[in-house]
Amino acid sequence: MSRHILVAALCAPLAVPALADPLPSWDDAGAQAKIVAFVDSVTEEGGAGYVEPSRRIAVFDNDGTLWSEQPAYFQLFFALDFLKAEAEKDPSILTSPALKAGAAGDLEALAATGMDGLLEVIEVSHAGLSTEAFQARARDWATTAVHPTSGLTYAQMTYAPMVELLGYLRDNGFSTWIVSGGGVDFIRGFAEAAYGIPPWQVIGTRGRTEWDPVSKTVMKTGGVALIDDKEGKPVGIAQQIGVRPILAFGNSDGDYQMLDYVTSGEGPSLGLIVHHTDAAREFAYDREGHIGVLDRALDEAEGHGWVVVDMAAEWSTIWSGE
Amino acid sequence: MSRHILVAALCAPLAVPALADPLPSWDDAGAQAKIVAFVDSVTEEGGAGYVEPSRRIAVFDNDGTLWSEQPAYFQLFFALDFLKAEAEKDPSILTSPALKAGAAGDLEALAATGMDGLLEVIEVSHAGLSTEAFQARARDWATTAVHPTSGLTYAQMTYAPMVELLGYLRDNGFSTWIVSGGGVDFIRGFAEAAYGIPPWQVIGTRGRTEWDPVSKTVMKTGGVALIDDKEGKPVGIAQQIGVRPILAFGNSDGDYQMLDYVTSGEGPSLGLIVHHTDAAREFAYDREGHIGVLDRALDEAEGHGWVVVDMAAEWSTIWSGE
Ligand SMILES: [Ca+2]
Ligand SMILES: [Ca+2]
Repeated sequence: MSRHILVAALCAPLAVPALADPLPSWDDAGAQAKIVAFVDSVTEEGGAGYVEPSRRIAVFDNDGTLWSEQPAYFQLFFALDFLKAEAEKDPSILTSPALKAGAAGDLEALAATGMDGLLEVIEVSHAGLSTEAFQARARDWATTAVHPTSGLTYAQMTYAPMVELLGYLRDNGFSTWIVSGGGVDFIRGFAEAAYGIPPWQVIGTRGRTEWDPVSKTVMKTGGVALIDDKEGKPVGIAQQIGVRPILAFGNSDGDYQMLDYVTSGEGPSLGLIVHHTDAAREFAYDREGHIGVLDRALDEAEGHGWVVVDMAAEWSTIWSGE
Repeated sequence: MSRHILVAALCAPLAVPALADPLPSWDDAGAQAKIVAFVDSVTEEGGAGYVEPSRRIAVFDNDGTLWSEQPAYFQLFFALDFLKAEAEKDPSILTSPALKAGAAGDLEALAATGMDGLLEVIEVSHAGLSTEAFQARARDWATTAVHPTSGLTYAQMTYAPMVELLGYLRDNGFSTWIVSGGGVDFIRGFAEAAYGIPPWQVIGTRGRTEWDPVSKTVMKTGGVALIDDKEGKPVGIAQQIGVRPILAFGNSDGDYQMLDYVTSGEGPSLGLIVHHTDAAREFAYDREGHIGVLDRALDEAEGHGWVVVDMAAEWSTIWSGE
């Protein structure tokens, strides 16, 4: 071996087997090949589809796309768990039918109190503390509280194939972002540990906040400042990223406008939809229901070129913590 | 030379002279040494002040901190230049005293029309187009329009010492952010070329925006949604970054709360203030004036441990384009 070759061999990065599957939890029924072809294309220097790394921006819905959302949004379970714990310490806080229903875990009675009742329950856990303290509260809950039917912690109910995909995209120079109808500080509490997504790459529904010059913190004061859903998703992206992403992944009609925005740019783009088809291993739902309705986006996916991922057929594993 | 040493020598990164001055436009009258000591401390692995790279977040005011702001905010010159050009094409657009004063460049008469008049002038150039088209408009203007007294383009009036500092911080693993009372999309138009700061690391005052399903863009619809000044700065930081930064640099009382927030965290932090002391080379102003008033923050800087940078004494060069 010449000295030249020896040096090259010693200096080379650790060789990665060229054919290692970067997405082992994906069974190739169409989506995986399209994802890999898109990534290969935008990363091929000199290629017609090349996109510089800083513009390889990928946005992901959270509920139903990165983790489960049944039988209710996990953020509601968080609020209810907190309310129950507070009520055990001091039952006198249950001053309304909504709070009583929430503390009893009676989702039907809570629903009967309408949106005002729901917000009242949510604000018990979401207001009157700093954004930092709230993130810590959400983090603790996500990693310790247990989901009512799966027996896993909520943090274990992130989707293994999606966590793999996030890492695969980052390995290929992408930045990965969450764009969620869920609360931004709630998701920031666990997104870095769960998904490798830092707080500043989370966009979500925002409560009102105020600077508190005494505690020197930004306090959550209750109420809602931005609903980051439907047409709010492109608005939130424009506010926080300021550049049109090139890849979007959602699971419901709430992601329609985000998918439409991302796949209407001038350069290459890819839109994807998780289709919840697996009642045996997860939950099966699409056109009807109280959460994650996928109807118009399912009808129009083919026309837009959006890739619909059949969970039952394409994901060999569902949850990260299985 | 043994083969082992030879390999090490060939594989080593290009050696950087250890004593090269990373901030050549800074004369050391105190501030430079404090900046370097802080950076050395937070980057020293195993040291008591070590901060992991993802949390080395540095926030900068823009007007008067990263570029000049006299005799008026540059964004106002942008609005006036646009209004003049539009009025030359079609004088019938000048339907109010404010618009007439603006197109004539009569800042005094414009000021007499109050905040409503000012907003009317600004909205001519800031509404009715997509965020992407607006950013392109701002970029073109910043690199071609010429400042009334310096003879430089506005993009050339960024501060060379601050551009150096941004690069020095990034070389040491920091992320660099703008937190400005100026318009977020205006700054995003030129911040990447001027400062190396990408659009998603710009926080600023925001106009209202809406998703337009026909053009598939996010449109600027006029009005103001967030004033990112004073107590709005920590609020904007909490909204967009979601984590308390460790370094803040401002130049006026509008940065007081941001400085207070950043330097009140649990770990190491550094607050800095540009003091405009150089009437000969730039502009001299602090406690009085219509722009960039530095009064309370100057009085309280010592008590907070904030470093006041004396521009005349500490900057050997002022503008990047000199
Ligand atoms: Ca969803
Ligand atoms: Ca300023």
